[in-house]
Amino acid sequence: MYSFKNDYSEGAHPRILQALIESNLVQEDGYGGDWFTQRAIGLLKEKMGRSDIDIHLLSGGTQTNLTAISAFLRPHEAAIAASTGHIQTHETGAIEATGHKIISVESDNGKLNPSQIKAVLDLHTDEHMVKPKLVYISNTTEVGSIYSKSELTNLRDFCQEHNLLLYMDGARLGSALTSDENDLKLSDLPALVDAFYIGGTKNGALLGEALVICLDSLKEEFRFHLKQKGALLAKGRLLGIQFCELFRDDLFFELAQHANKMAAILRKECSEANFSFLSHSPSNQIFPIMPDSLIAELQKDYSFIVWEKIDSTHSAIRLVTSWATKEEEVRAFVEDMKKQIQ
Amino acid sequence: MYSFKNDYSEGAHPRILQALIESNLVQEDGYGGDWFTQRAIGLLKEKMGRSDIDIHLLSGGTQTNLTAISAFLRPHEAAIAASTGHIQTHETGAIEATGHKIISVESDNGKLNPSQIKAVLDLHTDEHMVKPKLVYISNTTEVGSIYSKSELTNLRDFCQEHNLLLYMDGARLGSALTSDENDLKLSDLPALVDAFYIGGTKNGALLGEALVICLDSLKEEFRFHLKQKGALLAKGRLLGIQFCELFRDDLFFELAQHANKMAAILRKECSEANFSFLSHSPSNQIFPIMPDSLIAELQKDYSFIVWEKIDSTHSAIRLVTSWATKEEEVRAFVEDMKKQIQ
Amino acid sequence: MYSFKNDYSEGAHPRILQALIESNLVQEDGYGGDWFTQRAIGLLKEKMGRSDIDIHLLSGGTQTNLTAISAFLRPHEAAIAASTGHIQTHETGAIEATGHKIISVESDNGKLNPSQIKAVLDLHTDEHMVKPKLVYISNTTEVGSIYSKSELTNLRDFCQEHNLLLYMDGARLGSALTSDENDLKLSDLPALVDAFYIGGTKNGALLGEALVICLDSLKEEFRFHLKQKGALLAKGRLLGIQFCELFRDDLFFELAQHANKMAAILRKECSEANFSFLSHSPSNQIFPIMPDSLIAELQKDYSFIVWEKIDSTHSAIRLVTSWATKEEEVRAFVEDMKKQIQ
Amino acid sequence: MYSFKNDYSEGAHPRILQALIESNLVQEDGYGGDWFTQRAIGLLKEKMGRSDIDIHLLSGGTQTNLTAISAFLRPHEAAIAASTGHIQTHETGAIEATGHKIISVESDNGKLNPSQIKAVLDLHTDEHMVKPKLVYISNTTEVGSIYSKSELTNLRDFCQEHNLLLYMDGARLGSALTSDENDLKLSDLPALVDAFYIGGTKNGALLGEALVICLDSLKEEFRFHLKQKGALLAKGRLLGIQFCELFRDDLFFELAQHANKMAAILRKECSEANFSFLSHSPSNQIFPIMPDSLIAELQKDYSFIVWEKIDSTHSAIRLVTSWATKEEEVRAFVEDMKKQIQ
Repeated sequence: MYSFKNDYSEGAHPRILQALIESNLVQEDGYGGDWFTQRAIGLLKEKMGRSDIDIHLLSGGTQTNLTAISAFLRPHEAAIAASTGHIQTHETGAIEATGHKIISVESDNGKLNPSQIKAVLDLHTDEHMVKPKLVYISNTTEVGSIYSKSELTNLRDFCQEHNLLLYMDGARLGSALTSDENDLKLSDLPALVDAFYIGGTKNGALLGEALVICLDSLKEEFRFHLKQKGALLAKGRLLGIQFCELFRDDLFFELAQHANKMAAILRKECSEANFSFLSHSPSNQIFPIMPDSLIAELQKDYSFIVWEKIDSTHSAIRLVTSWATKEEEVRAFVEDMKKQIQ
Repeated sequence: MYSFKNDYSEGAHPRILQALIESNLVQEDGYGGDWFTQRAIGLLKEKMGRSDIDIHLLSGGTQTNLTAISAFLRPHEAAIAASTGHIQTHETGAIEATGHKIISVESDNGKLNPSQIKAVLDLHTDEHMVKPKLVYISNTTEVGSIYSKSELTNLRDFCQEHNLLLYMDGARLGSALTSDENDLKLSDLPALVDAFYIGGTKNGALLGEALVICLDSLKEEFRFHLKQKGALLAKGRLLGIQFCELFRDDLFFELAQHANKMAAILRKECSEANFSFLSHSPSNQIFPIMPDSLIAELQKDYSFIVWEKIDSTHSAIRLVTSWATKEEEVRAFVEDMKKQIQ
Repeated sequence: MYSFKNDYSEGAHPRILQALIESNLVQEDGYGGDWFTQRAIGLLKEKMGRSDIDIHLLSGGTQTNLTAISAFLRPHEAAIAASTGHIQTHETGAIEATGHKIISVESDNGKLNPSQIKAVLDLHTDEHMVKPKLVYISNTTEVGSIYSKSELTNLRDFCQEHNLLLYMDGARLGSALTSDENDLKLSDLPALVDAFYIGGTKNGALLGEALVICLDSLKEEFRFHLKQKGALLAKGRLLGIQFCELFRDDLFFELAQHANKMAAILRKECSEANFSFLSHSPSNQIFPIMPDSLIAELQKDYSFIVWEKIDSTHSAIRLVTSWATKEEEVRAFVEDMKKQIQ
Repeated sequence: MYSFKNDYSEGAHPRILQALIESNLVQEDGYGGDWFTQRAIGLLKEKMGRSDIDIHLLSGGTQTNLTAISAFLRPHEAAIAASTGHIQTHETGAIEATGHKIISVESDNGKLNPSQIKAVLDLHTDEHMVKPKLVYISNTTEVGSIYSKSELTNLRDFCQEHNLLLYMDGARLGSALTSDENDLKLSDLPALVDAFYIGGTKNGALLGEALVICLDSLKEEFRFHLKQKGALLAKGRLLGIQFCELFRDDLFFELAQHANKMAAILRKECSEANFSFLSHSPSNQIFPIMPDSLIAELQKDYSFIVWEKIDSTHSAIRLVTSWATKEEEVRAFVEDMKKQIQ
């Protein structure tokens, strides 16, 4: 049984484990005051060519989202998110638990655009309603789509004009930035969003997300929020060592590229088999729509999520690849699929 | 410069890293649905001889405290803690951030007893005040003291009589249970407290705390709270693998014993040098009171925390040992100390 | 300029002011411990023929909703509301500020039915999502519609089957219960919902809502929540005196009947003028759709809210009547309207 | 049975009821948009000689404290309060319920001074602890004491130096400002504190507190917080009319003066009877220490609170006077007391 269920089925890239071993008995200060964390932050700043950004390393995506968003907003302010946004659907009300409403916007491709946000602003006109303040986007989105540079620039311009914060959830940012269709660079992001995070967990780390705060006013006293939300690991080195390893060369991007390449094979073959897709997803998650009978057959040897019922005989499935996905397993899946549909 | 600053200065015990390597490419379900987490939970239940407890693996102490306490209390209910309690002093208001007051009780040894709690109950008599509902204790405490079985039994009896929950923060439970003065067993705890956690981070793991919920009414739907508070790691295996390794034999206890043994050397030598101590701490943290001049000398070669000014020429310092503390460094510290005070 | 903007434009029914004057210098205990509050609660229980319900008097609708809902839910539980529901749209995120998500359900008549709720339950299947727990409905709804006894019974049955709480916002319950189309009695409600409130502010009181808690498990220690949320008035007598006056005979219902009667005149005349309505609202709020030019003319002499743009030349307006609405003003409005459309 | 239990035992000053009657059928906008509220705000600004302050009318003290403090603080920031402070002791954790810790400072006279606050700042040095940000004081305090102008100026200076907000709970501000020992004027306050409220409920109104926000950065979007916390009354006129009446001449001060005068009689007579007092309280609450036997006798005809046991045969009682306290009842109390102690 091979799994295409997600991109966190395995442990970590071997280089990361090696780095943990090599550093293991070095004594370091706790809570991110260690050398490795500082170096990881330095490496990330170099990669982005920016010294004026603040970077914090956290353990997971939900933790990062809730810590950042609750720190950035005043009590009456709300986040705007696509109806598919992770904070809206799959974080058990984590943002609301910190006191903030999420205004959900219907979106058919997982993305937000200025006109959708404008419609929200037009409806929220006085103090009987929350004040929309932060726009939450994901890249890649939860349905595998990505933002182009011009889309993101438009969003940034709109948000600046309307005094909105723009926050990007980058749980799968590696896959987005190495997509064949991508025209964004990591170093573009600090100028385009007010804060974002670079996901490590889904791209080869044991755990870890690097939150980048670009807007000065959001930086102040952020470590208090980390501690308050339980996000300050005693052995912060664990995160530092991993991000050092991912960014001391291009490992982070290479791992994402591999995931994308594996997904591309699946996409191409599904496409050639005349399956349509739930969304346009040039990244490491694809959502082919297949006959339920085929799905049942494939489930005998592969695990993946049946994402959504399409009609009485078809469903969309989600296939996710990762840095660890083996090409031979991808090929085997394709072969098995082809066999079934001959 | 050798550090006695804390028990999380190094990485993890080598067996833990080895276990991570061996399991690295096994595919597992996410969010604690993996084999390792299930096995770790099984091992812990076996160690305690109890199948009727729920166990969840989390990343850190503050996270565990805030997730558990906010799940256990209704909005108007409060926790009672010693004035030195970690939730009261060093978690940046994490409990209050979930909506709950902490009622602080002055304590000179870091512990709580029934009469102190009774005094709190006597003061909280109507709906203009919060309702005291949960008693938070730590073992070891923040000043290194430990609870005896009879002390804990008395607390348990009092709490049951008064419909209070008893919660134990076990960030350093290993050190407590292997203290020379301890008469508690891990397997005693489910009958004595309503919930507690077994600290991994400070006893040889990279990170990880095992929360044990003993009282049935507190178990329900706890995973929702884990997710909401950002405590559900995608690669939950990381926690499972570590707790498997710590508890598949007696590694957890051996590591704590080593830490205690190292502290015992320091305690004995400080005592023989006629230094008094801030607290009676038969565990891996000791708080000797030394002349400031000596402290200044020692700080040239060792790092540790100057805990509290005692008088114009003396301070208490905190020396912490761990599974990783090297006996030769302890001996060197002692020699250097002796040299200075000759 | 006569106002049809809302049902809280005037002070209180004269009998209420008279009651305040008569009781003014009687000394009473604070915080609802006064004789009047106890008598008001007694009168309400008599009206409903129930001694096993708990009643609390609060100041306003948002306060009542947030105090009740946050007391009823555990942190991971969510409320389900129609997309037009007051807690979803017009309470500035008050529910979210207490930590709870609202799951919004599209509804074209302001009401919820079991199949809509079933769809929500079907989507919320695990701990990565909030747990839907409380169904929030309003009667009358925010668009003036009302629940029939069979609709409410169906909802109640569904909620009981699915372990959901059913909560009714009765800010305009008087208007609902005295609607020509209504078949519910006040005394039916305790058997049909788990908690609800009887709105005084919009039905002749200076301020005041009577929260009725029917389900035993929701009653416990509710006064703590009142106090914590700032809802316990020092001079609780102010609420007690008013509810005594509203319910010592049928004043409450008579006032609502008057409001409905005034709305009925407007409805009939708009209808005869061939205006359609945004919603079917047999209560004290009506939403006729008129040419913008007519609206502009009417706005010269009357104030009301332009509710929603319908097309390039038409809008729906909201006309609200109350206990204080004068029939001659209603007639004048009708005459002016007719003049304009001749 | 005459009550000295509190200053909210009666309704409202007759002039207030009269004003309600006279304005009753005037149609006004809701939620504080009415003429009366605007005029009340204007009158208050005139009394203080300041046009650059923001004023909002709320229903009660706990509501005002929780709405203001939660609006003023970021999530990691805490309030400092005397151990006797109302927010610390008698608001059921209302501040914590909005997410903020209260740092309690032992105080024997109900007041805070710079050195006590300095000690708190010295202890709160990093992100593992909350950040002290707002100093909460009450005037009069909960034990009847008052702040002198120089004490308040010192606090103001200290707070400004240390970037702390200074907030004054004025539930009994009338009594403070008309105390024989007072040297503060209402118009002094905007320059001395960042925000404060003027209590109406305990000084002749049915309900109502006027929150004055002096510091510009705290003013922004405050009405959103009012709405979110359930503090925006639909019939805001109810508050406006009352504050108009209290401040269109000196009624507010006259009522407080009467209360103080009544307390002065009790104070003088208790003093002449050689009773000592729990606190120095030159205001409308006094705390004489009496033999328990005398207290028992007095309780037969008067109701008051037995505040604190002093020794095995003595207790402190609290006697509270108000705008409505009748001099003949005060005299009767004194006579009865004297009779008992002859």
